[in-house]
Amino acid sequence: MNLLQNSRFSARFGLSTPIALAPMALASGGALAAACARAGALGLVGGGYGDLAWTQREYTLALQAQDTGRIGCGFITWKLDEDASALDWVLGLPPEQRPRALMLSFGDPRPYAARIAASGAALICQVQRLEQVPQALEAGAAVVVAQGAEAGGHGMNALNGRATFTLVPEIADHLAAQSPDTLLLAAGGIADGRGLAAACLLGADGALIGSRLWATQESLAPQGAKEMAVHTDGDGTARTAVFDILRRKNWPAPYDFRALRNALHRQWEERVDALRADPAAARATYDAAVAAGDFSAAHATVGEAVGLVHDLPTAGALIARIDAQARRAGG
Amino acid sequence: MNLLQNSRFSARFGLSTPIALAPMALASGGALAAACARAGALGLVGGGYGDLAWTQREYTLALQAQDTGRIGCGFITWKLDEDASALDWVLGLPPEQRPRALMLSFGDPRPYAARIAASGAALICQVQRLEQVPQALEAGAAVVVAQGAEAGGHGMNALNGRATFTLVPEIADHLAAQSPDTLLLAAGGIADGRGLAAACLLGADGALIGSRLWATQESLAPQGAKEMAVHTDGDGTARTAVFDILRRKNWPAPYDFRALRNALHRQWEERVDALRADPAAARATYDAAVAAGDFSAAHATVGEAVGLVHDLPTAGALIARIDAQARRAGG
Repeated sequence: MNLLQNSRFSARFGLSTPIALAPMALASGGALAAACARAGALGLVGGGYGDLAWTQREYTLALQAQDTGRIGCGFITWKLDEDASALDWVLGLPPEQRPRALMLSFGDPRPYAARIAASGAALICQVQRLEQVPQALEAGAAVVVAQGAEAGGHGMNALNGRATFTLVPEIADHLAAQSPDTLLLAAGGIADGRGLAAACLLGADGALIGSRLWATQESLAPQGAKEMAVHTDGDGTARTAVFDILRRKNWPAPYDFRALRNALHRQWEERVDALRADPAAARATYDAAVAAGDFSAAHATVGEAVGLVHDLPTAGALIARIDAQARRAGG
Repeated sequence: MNLLQNSRFSARFGLSTPIALAPMALASGGALAAACARAGALGLVGGGYGDLAWTQREYTLALQAQDTGRIGCGFITWKLDEDASALDWVLGLPPEQRPRALMLSFGDPRPYAARIAASGAALICQVQRLEQVPQALEAGAAVVVAQGAEAGGHGMNALNGRATFTLVPEIADHLAAQSPDTLLLAAGGIADGRGLAAACLLGADGALIGSRLWATQESLAPQGAKEMAVHTDGDGTARTAVFDILRRKNWPAPYDFRALRNALHRQWEERVDALRADPAAARATYDAAVAAGDFSAAHATVGEAVGLVHDLPTAGALIARIDAQARRAGG
């Protein structure tokens, strides 16, 4: 097997390992994206909800990476429908500073396809279900990311979610038949070399890694959240709308949010409708916990792969470790 | 890589490929178990809810396999707590007819461990969460099955379910540290050679295969359900309590049921509490559909892997195909 050596994703983006940093809002800042790029991966800054000042600051930091050809940015598509100023800013930079890749998730990417193509950035479209793939292909996606519901943060809710293990080979077959030059990344649950090699075996050209890179020194996630994650096994997360309600995030159905299943989450997870109807008291508890760095009530955004996270290394050391393990395992 | 050649599961059970037939209630009958055994896999008869007459008939049929050393049986553990007569019958057969392996799922296996051990059968314990593994080890499990929530039929509900992609490596690490001689199978989402090889890469010794073997000629699933499954992609299933309520199955929390998401399921999937409170009319619709073989309302028990099912081969041809693809892919 030469799963990693022959990766089309590595070849296309000039990488030494077929890994992309998931553009996690408020965690994938410039330092983390730059560290990933220096380590030979694609570093996607987490443009998230499209905050212009945050994106300007962190993307500019990321450009300090040795290889700016490996820096990109990601946005939440339905938020761009409200305010695309951060997208417009990053696409309007001088050509040598523009993102190598622009990733869109959670919404219809087609309205943004033309201006992304005109900028020279490769379009990466994340999907959670097979039925979303045609829309990504219509938008001209160079890369489709198949995100299983085991992923941390936003994804499809329980009724609609797919798992990485079935979604990846099914989309791989679809692309092979319909659009063989479109690349495929697996996302959700990939935290070590076994996972990277298995994703490639299932038909992916590489992996988009979130939780495992969230738990690194360069990640902007709060230190207390990272330390709690190191001591939590994979049973300890859940996917519901609880934290979106508490955070006043108006996410459209059918998306919800996976995070550590802490005490405040447990209190509401089976009464989501009641929380939605009268969230004031729980929001006060949540806000106080965020201010205090108390992750028994504040959210820590990781997926099931947290059970494979046992330390907080630098991103560079981590990527080297994942790559080496994947090549030993089968790459 | 020699993922398949070096399989400890194959060596332990005298198999030519590290595959076990999932003991699917009412689908994994004697003919299917026998066909799997003849093809070099472990054929587990679906003792399911512990119906004595069904188990006697189908297990006896299975013994007609050429190699009775590859025949076993599986039961739903919490149903044994009500009536263990089918378990007692199969364990009380003459030694040469006893099951090679006895699989328990969905409950505490420890009360049954001693009599299974005394019969000479290897105990296989299926778990859905890491936290269930210590109980399986206490029961003396020779094999732990890590079942992801993408599996068809019963499994953990949305709040508690784990995915195959993360559960397998995490349990593999746990067993390596705590009980290195205990074998591990992956279950949920595995329907082709890519999946079998990827499961082994993630740390499993083989795979327990349900949906893909459900869709074979020998499976006792209704022909109409099988034909509908062939034309359904992996987006077309869902996991809720709807069909358990309609079928009057009194499953304990936190288990529920994945099946094709047909018209009747869609009608109730977001109103499960209302269905539970007043199920009479929906049950009448369901019962009539079962009688008529109408799978727009009757259930078809498959998991997300249905999107990788495109034909209805014999079990023997299918197992040969999976094994060959897995060896090409990396085994």
